[in-house]
Amino acid sequence: MTAQAVPREPRQDRSRATRRRLLEAAVDCLASVGWAGTTVTVVAERAGVSRGAAQHHFRTREELVTAAVEYGTEVRLHRMRARLDELAGRRPDTLEVVTLLGEMYSSPLFKAALQLWVAASSDEQLRAQVVPLEARFGREAHRLTVDALGADESTPGVRETVQATLDLVRGLGLADLLTDDSSRRTRLLHQWAATLDTALGR
Amino acid sequence: MTAQAVPREPRQDRSRATRRRLLEAAVDCLASVGWAGTTVTVVAERAGVSRGAAQHHFRTREELVTAAVEYGTEVRLHRMRARLDELAGRRPDTLEVVTLLGEMYSSPLFKAALQLWVAASSDEQLRAQVVPLEARFGREAHRLTVDALGADESTPGVRETVQATLDLVRGLGLADLLTDDSSRRTRLLHQWAATLDTALGR
Repeated sequence: MTAQAVPREPRQDRSRATRRRLLEAAVDCLASVGWAGTTVTVVAERAGVSRGAAQHHFRTREELVTAAVEYGTEVRLHRMRARLDELAGRRPDTLEVVTLLGEMYSSPLFKAALQLWVAASSDEQLRAQVVPLEARFGREAHRLTVDALGADESTPGVRETVQATLDLVRGLGLADLLTDDSSRRTRLLHQWAATLDTALGR
Repeated sequence: MTAQAVPREPRQDRSRATRRRLLEAAVDCLASVGWAGTTVTVVAERAGVSRGAAQHHFRTREELVTAAVEYGTEVRLHRMRARLDELAGRRPDTLEVVTLLGEMYSSPLFKAALQLWVAASSDEQLRAQVVPLEARFGREAHRLTVDALGADESTPGVRETVQATLDLVRGLGLADLLTDDSSRRTRLLHQWAATLDTALGR
């Protein structure tokens, strides 16, 4: 992303802050009450913004959700990058990496993303928007995981094993949707780290 | 179908068949158009049943969906049992078992279940119904997978590795929701079968 020189104009700042509050509330709303309950009115209320002000930013529910999808994907990528890059800098053990991945894929942000994927599965327009964003997220998550694990993808099978790790934590995220699955997840990821160490020849 | 030999209670049989058609249509409907689009009217039309006849069986959308959840779980369990038991009978290799699991968790039936989990995450009543059904399904899926793999759970780590296999295929099912992920899944499961053979000491 290119950093633009931001004009220090107070009204514009306020407007940007309002927009951001609405997007955060929309992501939050998707995660907690689901797709059907995420309307401009509900999101405005949750953000503490008047309905009029909200509609100044997002005229329709589609506009709001579209922007929230992009925003949520950016935030997920940003957090993943920040946390995995930080780990990669100090040669973490495998358990640290998979524990962090397990946490990220069980976060409210992941749950909001899940709501979107499921909604997109029966909405062509939304699907067309979500698919390229998720492809980008998937590529970046893979690259960051390879770096954090210090995995050598030129070794046959390593690429697939790293991918399996990300599919596993996605499955674990889903398992955490209806009940708190954290203690089972912890046991399972301990074992996974050991399996991964063997498979990656760490 | 040809003439039946002395049907004892034809009207009751017809009624049971209609009910079953409605439940199948409801599961189908959940998988393809999602939770929000699954109403008694839509399901009746899809099943080729009049709205009145449908409402004779299911007065409300809640009744219909509740019954469809149970029916779908039973069908998933029944298929899994039939296919894994058949495999377990002839000592399959690991790749056969994980390939079968990968297929099952990417089926329309899984996609319908996914719609339900996500809907249940923001609906207390539905959640209360889905959680015990899924717990039962999870236990049975685990037991069947252990048997099919001939895994020895008294060995430390084996239980978690079998669970990870099921979480992995759940994650793969999710990855298949918006795009056809089958070729990546095939590569990944080939590698996972090799890793699993090592981990299980097969």
